[in-house]
Amino acid sequence: MVLDKRLGLSETRDLLELASAYIDSIKLTFGTSALYPKAVLREKIKLIRSYGVDVYPGGTLFEIALWQDRLEPFFQCAAELGFTGIEISDGTLTISPKDRRRAIQRAKAHGFKVVTEVGKKIGPPLPVLRMQQMIADDLEAGADKVIIEGRESGKGVGIFDENGNIKTAEMEALVHDLPDFERVLVWEAPLKNQQVSLIKRFGPNVNLGNIAPEEVLALAALRCGLRGDTFGFCLEEQAAVSCRVSGEGGE
Amino acid sequence: MVLDKRLGLSETRDLLELASAYIDSIKLTFGTSALYPKAVLREKIKLIRSYGVDVYPGGTLFEIALWQDRLEPFFQCAAELGFTGIEISDGTLTISPKDRRRAIQRAKAHGFKVVTEVGKKIGPPLPVLRMQQMIADDLEAGADKVIIEGRESGKGVGIFDENGNIKTAEMEALVHDLPDFERVLVWEAPLKNQQVSLIKRFGPNVNLGNIAPEEVLALAALRCGLRGDTFGFCLEEQAAVSCRVSGEGGE
Amino acid sequence: MVLDKRLGLSETRDLLELASAYIDSIKLTFGTSALYPKAVLREKIKLIRSYGVDVYPGGTLFEIALWQDRLEPFFQCAAELGFTGIEISDGTLTISPKDRRRAIQRAKAHGFKVVTEVGKKIGPPLPVLRMQQMIADDLEAGADKVIIEGRESGKGVGIFDENGNIKTAEMEALVHDLPDFERVLVWEAPLKNQQVSLIKRFGPNVNLGNIAPEEVLALAALRCGLRGDTFGFCLEEQAAVSCRVSGEGGE
Repeated sequence: MVLDKRLGLSETRDLLELASAYIDSIKLTFGTSALYPKAVLREKIKLIRSYGVDVYPGGTLFEIALWQDRLEPFFQCAAELGFTGIEISDGTLTISPKDRRRAIQRAKAHGFKVVTEVGKKIGPPLPVLRMQQMIADDLEAGADKVIIEGRESGKGVGIFDENGNIKTAEMEALVHDLPDFERVLVWEAPLKNQQVSLIKRFGPNVNLGNIAPEEVLALAALRCGLRGDTFGFCLEEQAAVSCRVSGEGGE
Repeated sequence: MVLDKRLGLSETRDLLELASAYIDSIKLTFGTSALYPKAVLREKIKLIRSYGVDVYPGGTLFEIALWQDRLEPFFQCAAELGFTGIEISDGTLTISPKDRRRAIQRAKAHGFKVVTEVGKKIGPPLPVLRMQQMIADDLEAGADKVIIEGRESGKGVGIFDENGNIKTAEMEALVHDLPDFERVLVWEAPLKNQQVSLIKRFGPNVNLGNIAPEEVLALAALRCGLRGDTFGFCLEEQAAVSCRVSGEGGE
Repeated sequence: MVLDKRLGLSETRDLLELASAYIDSIKLTFGTSALYPKAVLREKIKLIRSYGVDVYPGGTLFEIALWQDRLEPFFQCAAELGFTGIEISDGTLTISPKDRRRAIQRAKAHGFKVVTEVGKKIGPPLPVLRMQQMIADDLEAGADKVIIEGRESGKGVGIFDENGNIKTAEMEALVHDLPDFERVLVWEAPLKNQQVSLIKRFGPNVNLGNIAPEEVLALAALRCGLRGDTFGFCLEEQAAVSCRVSGEGGE
């Protein structure tokens, strides 16, 4: 999942042309999608979808819509613009479990892929038990994936300490009793050391989020051992890549 | 005010197409504009102006021209290239008040918008009293705006300490006796915490400078409460945005 | 030498159109070139070459090919794709002096410009005496240039300490007995303070590497004194630039 706070149309095209194979979804982060000229936004969403990549607005926009009691017009507007997904978060607001569950269900009813986010942007981190409960509740309510909040900075939030290092016990607790966690969890991990640790722990296909557009290829290289930090880690991927690199000289 | 040290023509077009509504001016920073192929520079300036955005070369180029006693050819060349503004600074050189005043007046006589910069790039920060005096002198000499130096780093310069935090007393002293300071002052504030503090102190329309191109939309989101850090801060702006986000689904 | 981990076709064109005069070579870093769609890679290489700039894959890709005993297909594939250079490194693997020498010679036999890299990506830094020996051996084996490893971070590697400051004694030792070191050595120096120090020590034309694409013009400004940090340092360059800036107003 790419965190996009700035890509214009040419830059979006460049990114997709080069690296769409390594991207599941693009988040137009914060409330930025509200600030685009409408025609540019429509064209950008269309472009992203043409590469088979999902696109959704930042959770902040959902929180504002909820806070203003305008959830239905928000979903309608997002659908009409072409967004394929919705992020349900409570990074800033406090939302009751009932309202959260209802928001997930309403977004699903509109046909969106629904990703929820667990973790607060400000204040003390959530206790692990609370995060476990939220993940279970969200999935039970119909969420397709659950994102573990990492912010754009990757520091002092969720499973990351103030220096951006992973708090291993917290991370392990989150996956301990969760069936199919490889598929449903997305770890926001903007920093390289976080990406390396998560790849080494959960394998090369671990879902990572808040990846800066300029890091997409570098992360793909990390995943398949094409970078010093993970060299030799993912033998099978290397074999596959090797064929692509060295074996097509005569094509 | 965007600090541009690198945008090519497509990237410039992308930025303007997406976010020109949130940009007053673009500074081709340092002496970079001297390093462009001339045809590319002309086309870029024309493009920026076509969006109603001001464009001016970095203050370093002015200082070099003054140092070489070639101010008049510098102004002529800048005008001929299409620059709409000039930055008068003494970040590196020592310039007498008389020369500074004269430079402002000559730039105005060429028809430029004139922004002056107060603060040294190297060495101990200027005392506040000195900065106050310079601001008053520059405005009296005809400057349109005065920039408070923050460098590209935002650390250990002007109103920022070594960690990039705002020195509140210095900041307050600068605006204390200055009529119309909201309009005439521009705060160079490249870091997010600085932007948040200045928005909270001076309101969502505070003039900010040295904004990286990739941060323009993110800053616009901060200004109008569409990001966790300022959520709920700017109610009126949110209401306005809400209309744009949620209310036009049927257009 | 630009470290490119992400440029799409429009961005590559933008960079070259704006700044090709200041670029000797572009490295498609790590193993990223193995991850491009083949057609995009071919077009990008062609574009880079059309500006007279060298282009080569990251050393990690060479190391993987060597490790898989597929060096010949790797060189053939790189040549067929249009790469003009090859980087021979042992940042991650341990390679015997004999294998290293042989790899250099084989790459030369394929017609590539050969740059070797000295320094480990992980673990304790190499002793200076070892680096000196490797540099001498590589040049003797036919290498065109030798890169001193600095990684993308510029910290805790080669001649840089954990904070990214230059270890002066090590740096001086490397050039002490090396004839023509200005031409053959390339210093990877991603951070500004490193660039400033190396320019001040070795002059404005010092070979620098691992320059981020967005820093190319800013570095060119540093080199010729068009930025506060080196203002007044390079008088001749300033004079030259002055002609371009101020003297062509009437063209």
